[in-house]
Amino acid sequence: MNTRIEPFKAIAISELAHRLKAEGKPVIHMEFGQPSTGAPQAAIQTAHAVLDGDAMGYWESARLRERISRHYQERYGVEIAPDRVILTAGASPALLLSMLAGFEPGDRIVMARPGYVAYRNTARAVHLVPVEIDCGPETRFQLSAQMIEALDPAPAGIVIASPANPTGTILPPEELEAIAEVCRERGIRIISDEIYHGLSYGMPAASIARFDDTAFIVNSFSKYYSMVGWRLGWVIAPADKAELVRAYRGNLFLTPPSLSQHAALTAMDCESELNAHVETYRTNREALLEALPRMGLTSIAPPDGAFYIWADIGHLTDNSMAFCERLLRETFVAAAPGLDFDPVNGHRFMRLSFAVSTPQVKEAIYRLEPWFAALKA
Amino acid sequence: MNTRIEPFKAIAISELAHRLKAEGKPVIHMEFGQPSTGAPQAAIQTAHAVLDGDAMGYWESARLRERISRHYQERYGVEIAPDRVILTAGASPALLLSMLAGFEPGDRIVMARPGYVAYRNTARAVHLVPVEIDCGPETRFQLSAQMIEALDPAPAGIVIASPANPTGTILPPEELEAIAEVCRERGIRIISDEIYHGLSYGMPAASIARFDDTAFIVNSFSKYYSMVGWRLGWVIAPADKAELVRAYRGNLFLTPPSLSQHAALTAMDCESELNAHVETYRTNREALLEALPRMGLTSIAPPDGAFYIWADIGHLTDNSMAFCERLLRETFVAAAPGLDFDPVNGHRFMRLSFAVSTPQVKEAIYRLEPWFAALKA
Repeated sequence: MNTRIEPFKAIAISELAHRLKAEGKPVIHMEFGQPSTGAPQAAIQTAHAVLDGDAMGYWESARLRERISRHYQERYGVEIAPDRVILTAGASPALLLSMLAGFEPGDRIVMARPGYVAYRNTARAVHLVPVEIDCGPETRFQLSAQMIEALDPAPAGIVIASPANPTGTILPPEELEAIAEVCRERGIRIISDEIYHGLSYGMPAASIARFDDTAFIVNSFSKYYSMVGWRLGWVIAPADKAELVRAYRGNLFLTPPSLSQHAALTAMDCESELNAHVETYRTNREALLEALPRMGLTSIAPPDGAFYIWADIGHLTDNSMAFCERLLRETFVAAAPGLDFDPVNGHRFMRLSFAVSTPQVKEAIYRLEPWFAALKA
Repeated sequence: MNTRIEPFKAIAISELAHRLKAEGKPVIHMEFGQPSTGAPQAAIQTAHAVLDGDAMGYWESARLRERISRHYQERYGVEIAPDRVILTAGASPALLLSMLAGFEPGDRIVMARPGYVAYRNTARAVHLVPVEIDCGPETRFQLSAQMIEALDPAPAGIVIASPANPTGTILPPEELEAIAEVCRERGIRIISDEIYHGLSYGMPAASIARFDDTAFIVNSFSKYYSMVGWRLGWVIAPADKAELVRAYRGNLFLTPPSLSQHAALTAMDCESELNAHVETYRTNREALLEALPRMGLTSIAPPDGAFYIWADIGHLTDNSMAFCERLLRETFVAAAPGLDFDPVNGHRFMRLSFAVSTPQVKEAIYRLEPWFAALKA
């Protein structure tokens, strides 16, 4: 059972990238999904103030739970009682708590492939059975209501992600509503990973909260709020599961980092600074979508959100790990091999994160273009 | 399965304590195991510096892992390779990772009762079977090598804790060695919770690392280092399990809080400030051990370490929850009801934490003495 938990392949690339950087090489880090910006300035000022005045014991911020509740009202027009908000040390433990509180051992949980590696591995860790459905360009790499309707037997649950990792595709509200409806009819519990909300380049992503109050929603301050290393996230639990999630949280984790909760409360009022990051990502995205086809990378689902491009490199390699390593050694651009996200087809994909600065993206394109041209020659 | 995970009873007491405090009552918080002091001053200065200079992405500090490795050399004379140190967001996830990497679903894990509530609940969460052994004053509330020898059949694992929560008792090195030996003979894997190391009032606690390199060791910066809300801990994994623990950590949690890792590295060189806290606890402990018998609380195992007193109140109540609530409402001293630590006999115990200031302990004694006298009258 244990042997099925694999380390992330991207970590090996990242370690090599850091070694090369330490040797003085001009590495551009596009392998991980993390903003190169830090927390909003005002959030950092809050942290300075708290550091000097608070001994920081075990603590969950009631004010932050209320602020998140208000965020659902303002952003999505949905009422979420603050006691349905459970704060965690990032979205990862939020996902774990959702799986523990929502399911029983042996339950089958359906998810799209490609998808974020921790969905299947966290499910396995708590003895659920992940069932990956091959999702291609025809559904923009997402599960559809139609697919879920056709599942036989019905699984106990599904994981959806919109915007998705590694593709950045968004489920339109009408599709999300149709998914909620088929899941309600068939008794399927939804876990909705909404960690990339706030990062979209056309229509904003809708929350499952609009359509289904029995879903678990996972989110964090790591992406839009640019607070990766602060390790703070949350679960929205269904009303009848909130107490159970809280009991699991207490036993498995106690409370989330105190300083991060103070800073996050400030960060939620820093929209103009944070939206400027989104504009940077928008510029980066456009530059890449314009440049990659010139390099022969034509099979790309243009990302509606998040900060990733999932590129088919099957015409160039059947070993994405070796490909990414060579790419890194020869251009100093670090990309994530597709195998983390798709154990079946990931050998012919790579993921580029554009959560870097625009000059870095331009420099990456400047290096990649001749490199791909030479590959084809 | 889910319904067996209970919320902590101490949380209800703590919430009442906070409500009373908000009403202006002079509450003394002795219900939770958290230092009322903050992080060392130099660690806070490190945090200020990092806040302004580091965007804080996903990160595990190699320097901190090396420093912890050196700590085992200096403190215990044991070689622990840095890659056996896995950093986590507190001891709680460290315990979870140890249980996931060390055992298979259905495995029986033996632990002392009384004991820390998360041992049994975390085991249940990952579908292990906790087996609690009633441990009384005759073994100072600890498992013994003799007890483990007598277990039939042998369990897959045991959890030991020295100093223990809620009693503060320490396993002497020769007993620890005997436990390691019987576990080796019988093929029993040890998880050693060493979170209270550094907090001892006579002989320092020995680490299981001296006697068994197949054990998982759990520790954190929350107790001796007084960095509770920073949420940083570690696992020492057996060499053949380190990669698996790291894979679980990556999937379930990604990385621990960045700022906390920077600050903790500084905190490890702040022994004189931290040892002054221990001297405060020593004074507090002596004051309580001197005063409690006068109040009729005579059945106490004097704590060798940690900062708890586990007091038998069976001559006064068979409902420790109601007793602690009344104690709080009438004296504004918050104590933890025993049920969190012992579901069988905890109805007649309470736990007092003396990780507060000495004036607070003296004030608590000043209030408790007439209150207990009135009870007996």
